[in-house]
Amino acid sequence: MNINIKKLNKVVIFGVGLIGGSFALALKKHAAVKHIVGVGRSQSSLARAVTLGIIDVACSNLADALDGADLLLIAVPVAQTESIFHAIYPYLQKQTIVTDAGSTKGDVIAAARRILAEKIGQFVPAHPIAGAEHSGPEAAMVDLYQGKKVVITALPENTHSALHLVASVWQGCGAIPHYLNSEQHDQIFAAVSHLPHVLAFALMNKIAEQPEADLYFQYAASGFRDFTRIAGASPEMWRDITMANRDVLQAELVQYQAQLQQISVALRQANSDQLLAIFSKAQAARQRLICSSS
Amino acid sequence: MNINIKKLNKVVIFGVGLIGGSFALALKKHAAVKHIVGVGRSQSSLARAVTLGIIDVACSNLADALDGADLLLIAVPVAQTESIFHAIYPYLQKQTIVTDAGSTKGDVIAAARRILAEKIGQFVPAHPIAGAEHSGPEAAMVDLYQGKKVVITALPENTHSALHLVASVWQGCGAIPHYLNSEQHDQIFAAVSHLPHVLAFALMNKIAEQPEADLYFQYAASGFRDFTRIAGASPEMWRDITMANRDVLQAELVQYQAQLQQISVALRQANSDQLLAIFSKAQAARQRLICSSS
Repeated sequence: MNINIKKLNKVVIFGVGLIGGSFALALKKHAAVKHIVGVGRSQSSLARAVTLGIIDVACSNLADALDGADLLLIAVPVAQTESIFHAIYPYLQKQTIVTDAGSTKGDVIAAARRILAEKIGQFVPAHPIAGAEHSGPEAAMVDLYQGKKVVITALPENTHSALHLVASVWQGCGAIPHYLNSEQHDQIFAAVSHLPHVLAFALMNKIAEQPEADLYFQYAASGFRDFTRIAGASPEMWRDITMANRDVLQAELVQYQAQLQQISVALRQANSDQLLAIFSKAQAARQRLICSSS
Repeated sequence: MNINIKKLNKVVIFGVGLIGGSFALALKKHAAVKHIVGVGRSQSSLARAVTLGIIDVACSNLADALDGADLLLIAVPVAQTESIFHAIYPYLQKQTIVTDAGSTKGDVIAAARRILAEKIGQFVPAHPIAGAEHSGPEAAMVDLYQGKKVVITALPENTHSALHLVASVWQGCGAIPHYLNSEQHDQIFAAVSHLPHVLAFALMNKIAEQPEADLYFQYAASGFRDFTRIAGASPEMWRDITMANRDVLQAELVQYQAQLQQISVALRQANSDQLLAIFSKAQAARQRLICSSS
């Protein structure tokens, strides 16, 4: 699938791990770019990315890397995005469109406005909804984005052609562009991603604090393992995401605790009709989820 | 695998759905029983179980069904167990061992003591840790219990031979007997099963109550779907289980809410070190779980 991408001369990728590396592989497969330059903090990751054929060349000089670039993808943990805006600002030429892959958008956009200043229109914020358990260039997969959503949270300053470029490049990688504003994005992902991660982390810790935790784990069946799979995710990444979206997440936690409180009260009152009503509503919602997200 | 089972003449199964039906199929496969009689409230389920070859005969008269039985398995929702103890008590002969498959044990044992009275030693409480998404005789599978745990919560009144019979019959079905007392059982399963179900139900309801719930569900990725899979379980079954184990579950919810509170405080204080510590501990516990339960 090579939808509507005009061939790009030069794409720069900041961070050549799972997200940036998979983006590069997909663009290369569809011959959508002549030249892919990798930039990053880890020289060894960059060298491995060259060896693996993910990028054409690694570049340690940002002025050189950005010279003549059509597109720059920032694919680093969200907490590092601000320092990258600082680093690129002096070398960012007028024709270069910048996009990112961060899991939160409000904080990234605020940093971009502060630092990119009059160049803000060149930044098209985005979030591909894809991931995997592993990280680093070795984890990169050519089809990571195939059929997955990419949420673009356009800014009023973005030109039509900048938005079109980012959307079509992601389509070239197999992804399906969706459009939300950044508040919607951060609200929705707080509910369907950040909160569930926090809930899974909290459950693991509750059990780990039992004196006989290993006995408990021994009786954990497949439901428990599925429920807590997301607690295996990177603590550093989730520290950054929950910090970046902490106001929205706090409100989510308050609402969630109110739901738990309803169940606690029904249990205390031995109100079996109320428990049945609560569980039935949840099961019906789960059915709706299966229909709408599969 | 036909470990150490002496051939039984007559096994009676009360409830010929997924749990009772799979037990019957496994016993038949290993030729461990001459005659399997099905009993239950639904004549149509019993008729289908005969057609499917799960049971040899359906019996609507309990006196006849229990006459000469070696073993009776009660495989019905936990809330119905008490009424079944009442029904069988007058016809329960001295040689018959009764066991169950209930997900909670304290309430079942209390009912058994109250109703079976001087016959309590004949009741060996058990809980096979196996299940599936579907129910009814059609869902029965010959290998449902293969390699799965069955927890036996022996009573002081149980004879060695009664315990041996129940353990060896489950081994004949491919299951691995484990021994806990009923308080341990209900505590452990509150933590690793009942609480996670409640948490998943609560999360589905939280999102379902949003005005734009379907938009939220649209962005739910695989992590969310795994996390909430258990919210698809039967509301009636979970009403019964949470009611039966409500004191322990309430205490679990209180402990869990304390864990969420720690995370709330860290978010409010923007304490990223604390968030990292909490998530790291949880991730390490998740690794331990993978090692101990796989």
